[in-house]
Amino acid sequence: MSAKDFSARVIEVFTAIHPLDRVPRAGFLLRGVTEPESVSAHSHALALMAMLFCEHYPRYDTARVLGMALVHDLAEARIMDIPMPQADAYLKEAKHEAEQAITEELFTGLSPKFAELNQEFMDGQTDEARLLRALDKAQMMIKVWCYDREGRGRLDEFWRNPNNFKDYGVAEVSDLFDAICAAAGHPRPV
Amino acid sequence: MSAKDFSARVIEVFTAIHPLDRVPRAGFLLRGVTEPESVSAHSHALALMAMLFCEHYPRYDTARVLGMALVHDLAEARIMDIPMPQADAYLKEAKHEAEQAITEELFTGLSPKFAELNQEFMDGQTDEARLLRALDKAQMMIKVWCYDREGRGRLDEFWRNPNNFKDYGVAEVSDLFDAICAAAGHPRPV
Amino acid sequence: MSAKDFSARVIEVFTAIHPLDRVPRAGFLLRGVTEPESVSAHSHALALMAMLFCEHYPRYDTARVLGMALVHDLAEARIMDIPMPQADAYLKEAKHEAEQAITEELFTGLSPKFAELNQEFMDGQTDEARLLRALDKAQMMIKVWCYDREGRGRLDEFWRNPNNFKDYGVAEVSDLFDAICAAAGHPRPV
Amino acid sequence: MSAKDFSARVIEVFTAIHPLDRVPRAGFLLRGVTEPESVSAHSHALALMAMLFCEHYPRYDTARVLGMALVHDLAEARIMDIPMPQADAYLKEAKHEAEQAITEELFTGLSPKFAELNQEFMDGQTDEARLLRALDKAQMMIKVWCYDREGRGRLDEFWRNPNNFKDYGVAEVSDLFDAICAAAGHPRPV
Amino acid sequence: MSAKDFSARVIEVFTAIHPLDRVPRAGFLLRGVTEPESVSAHSHALALMAMLFCEHYPRYDTARVLGMALVHDLAEARIMDIPMPQADAYLKEAKHEAEQAITEELFTGLSPKFAELNQEFMDGQTDEARLLRALDKAQMMIKVWCYDREGRGRLDEFWRNPNNFKDYGVAEVSDLFDAICAAAGHPRPV
Amino acid sequence: MSAKDFSARVIEVFTAIHPLDRVPRAGFLLRGVTEPESVSAHSHALALMAMLFCEHYPRYDTARVLGMALVHDLAEARIMDIPMPQADAYLKEAKHEAEQAITEELFTGLSPKFAELNQEFMDGQTDEARLLRALDKAQMMIKVWCYDREGRGRLDEFWRNPNNFKDYGVAEVSDLFDAICAAAGHPRPV
Repeated sequence: MSAKDFSARVIEVFTAIHPLDRVPRAGFLLRGVTEPESVSAHSHALALMAMLFCEHYPRYDTARVLGMALVHDLAEARIMDIPMPQADAYLKEAKHEAEQAITEELFTGLSPKFAELNQEFMDGQTDEARLLRALDKAQMMIKVWCYDREGRGRLDEFWRNPNNFKDYGVAEVSDLFDAICAAAGHPRPV
Repeated sequence: MSAKDFSARVIEVFTAIHPLDRVPRAGFLLRGVTEPESVSAHSHALALMAMLFCEHYPRYDTARVLGMALVHDLAEARIMDIPMPQADAYLKEAKHEAEQAITEELFTGLSPKFAELNQEFMDGQTDEARLLRALDKAQMMIKVWCYDREGRGRLDEFWRNPNNFKDYGVAEVSDLFDAICAAAGHPRPV
Repeated sequence: MSAKDFSARVIEVFTAIHPLDRVPRAGFLLRGVTEPESVSAHSHALALMAMLFCEHYPRYDTARVLGMALVHDLAEARIMDIPMPQADAYLKEAKHEAEQAITEELFTGLSPKFAELNQEFMDGQTDEARLLRALDKAQMMIKVWCYDREGRGRLDEFWRNPNNFKDYGVAEVSDLFDAICAAAGHPRPV
Repeated sequence: MSAKDFSARVIEVFTAIHPLDRVPRAGFLLRGVTEPESVSAHSHALALMAMLFCEHYPRYDTARVLGMALVHDLAEARIMDIPMPQADAYLKEAKHEAEQAITEELFTGLSPKFAELNQEFMDGQTDEARLLRALDKAQMMIKVWCYDREGRGRLDEFWRNPNNFKDYGVAEVSDLFDAICAAAGHPRPV
Repeated sequence: MSAKDFSARVIEVFTAIHPLDRVPRAGFLLRGVTEPESVSAHSHALALMAMLFCEHYPRYDTARVLGMALVHDLAEARIMDIPMPQADAYLKEAKHEAEQAITEELFTGLSPKFAELNQEFMDGQTDEARLLRALDKAQMMIKVWCYDREGRGRLDEFWRNPNNFKDYGVAEVSDLFDAICAAAGHPRPV
Repeated sequence: MSAKDFSARVIEVFTAIHPLDRVPRAGFLLRGVTEPESVSAHSHALALMAMLFCEHYPRYDTARVLGMALVHDLAEARIMDIPMPQADAYLKEAKHEAEQAITEELFTGLSPKFAELNQEFMDGQTDEARLLRALDKAQMMIKVWCYDREGRGRLDEFWRNPNNFKDYGVAEVSDLFDAICAAAGHPRPV
């Protein structure tokens, strides 16, 4: 691929994901949080958290973890953020297929690696994917705690849902969940 | 550092940067863009763009580039985004020192690498830093083009300022600037 | 059902749909419209438009048409507004089932009529359902025209998509589509 | 009136009320609720609530009740929502005349029924008008309770004002007010 | 009045006008301007403009002009901003009486001068009041021009309404209106 | 300066400060207050508070105090609001110089008095400047109290920082600080 073609594709990718910085995290919007975190902001925080973990627990492939964090929600620039419990209950497979197809289309002509990272994240079978899926929840729960302390929204049900504390077998994130619950003064739900 | 201490520090870092998803990119806000990109969203887009470049031009140290992208604006969770021309004209050194000091404080007790990445980015001497500083501008100008097409704000002066197209000697980003200008129908300012 | 039980159910319904006034119409948000119409506001406008049509073309069952207009998007208080082309391409059946299930659950213990109205709208077989589905598009396209004239967002692709002008065989709405296109200065796409 | 003329009038009505989805409910805005319910959203919720009541208590003329709900606040697309206590204290007659005149102008050339519905609502003499005026308050108080639980705004004075619980002699709405107060843990003011 | 009583009154005044910084200028909101100027921001700009005029044309009583600018819209913290044409057509006297009564109540126990300034502004008989009423329009039209250049809203009718260029016989503001129209490329309507 | 030149300069000043009504007060934004006070709104409230004090304590030069209030934050239309503790710790002198230079440039060709007022405020040596600097804090703390009662943001640290209650030796504002703390139920920090 020529530099010129590559530049053209880069422009297409970033105009395609341009709306992502205004796509609200649905779970927060629906519970009364005004000016909630965008999907872009979530992705940034998750990637940063992953970097801290990969530095501290060096057994992970950092580049893969960061890559997954950066791409895992790009499809929401097209399909919006569909809230978890409803998506899980009704749309699970269809939603995954839609997001994978949108991600593949987004990166057409570029490295197949990017869409593979998205698939790896959704499959959740590798150590890297399991780390990131657990951190995806941890980042959310720290945000919930921040909103709680700012009086924004009605988020108490987040603290009662064990799915929000799934560690996917990653001990270090399990420890983080414990610390979050202790700091916020909530028991960790089981 | 114990897992417990590490978890505690992670929570502190992410509560400290929590406001970043509502810190507006000042240059856009001041030119009439409503609901502008947040600093978090910018950081996510920059990291993603960097990943595309590192994959396509494999001579860069991907982990360092991504690390710089993820940390380079974290200090703005404390000090807000100060718009470029004014900051450059009046505050340059003081602003850099402030941001470096805030970044170091943010990561106290964690790896020194994170604050070093921020310093490397601001120094702009390594290939990785120069790539990212050039992409920092390119990401901004693609966003400007998106806003232009959506009728959001009055951004024409962005297209006339050569500083917004500084390639820091990186040929592949220079090519991207050319492509952006061509797509948007503007001559590239010199 | 006692008055007391009925009151309790009413409170539950309206606390459940409370978020709907902040659920943005996804198609507008994703195309750069800031402060876009909420799903609630859309439902109000659609019901009002339906009332005008039922008064002018008295062959429709007004109560059924208004009932469908008022309930047809309530499920989005749980599942958000999923943008049309993506939903149609990937989620069609699953999305309909999810919305119907959520609507049924919402009205549990109240008249089965409300969920039936939602089903009738989605099936689109009755005259009333076809009228309302066509008006659903017409209301959207008048809104697009209003946004265009206010310089909000980049909505030109709406004018090129024949799906946005589907009249479902209802001549009077076909006439309205013609009038909208004429007023806005666009040819009606076929 | 030809189909063509009717279409033209429909377009005029909906471009005229287009701003209504951004007109904030003044009582909420002034008490610190951010991103408050719009007047359009309120109208939708009120119409839906009315439909539930008409189905459960079938002695009302549903079409008239729904019609009143859909038109009763359309004038606010021109004159904004003027908060109740001040409007009542100073502007009462003038405000009603203004709203009726704006409503009549809005529907010029269409059925006189729509403006008559608005007048009927403001006069409050029929069973249908009294039901709807009482529900207008009930919808507001359920919203207040939702905001209270989300930590949005300072709305305690709503619970102390008997005018917010006026049942206009409609026993079934009086019962709803009791249920709202009981759920929210407030005594019903008298 | 003791220092303690004065402090108590000051706190009451500023908690009473606290909402003013979120009361939108209605004429802008209703014409599609998102994140429009608040009434507080308008008052600040008007006072500043008045100061420039009083410095340049020293025949005015500066303190009275500034005082009027600072108080002339405080009542809108209670009654919101009612858009001009509708208020003029239907509510004129009642609105003035309401605003004066609210202003008097706001300053109860403090100097009667503040409410007198509001009355002087509304009466529009003194040189100072006429200067400020003319500047009230000029500030608005400069804002309209800024919004036009930012692509925010559909404000063309502002340029066609002679009431928006009323100089109240103040030659220096008439000159400013000419300059605004010339800069914006519109003829001044008569 | 001709009337024509003066008009031209007035237009330039007000187009330059146009963004100020959307510049958020950084301290509030960073602590979770959504839709926070703008810098313009703050300036209006401060000027009004100053007017009340100058009327009640007539030893001050009212015109100078009001002038300082109206100009003291205009530079933020260019440089945004940089939050206090970080600005004080890192940028103090550079920030003051930047703001003074921007203010001088803003008023180029107009009376030098306006930029002098800004300098006088920053120097804080005159009675008028000290009064206004103290009121600058008092206005902020009343706002904090209003936000606290509306459940907006997490502002408790404001009540613990003695810098937010600096009276600059002005007894009457010290009394106001005492009253604010008493009303809000916080001890005044020392």
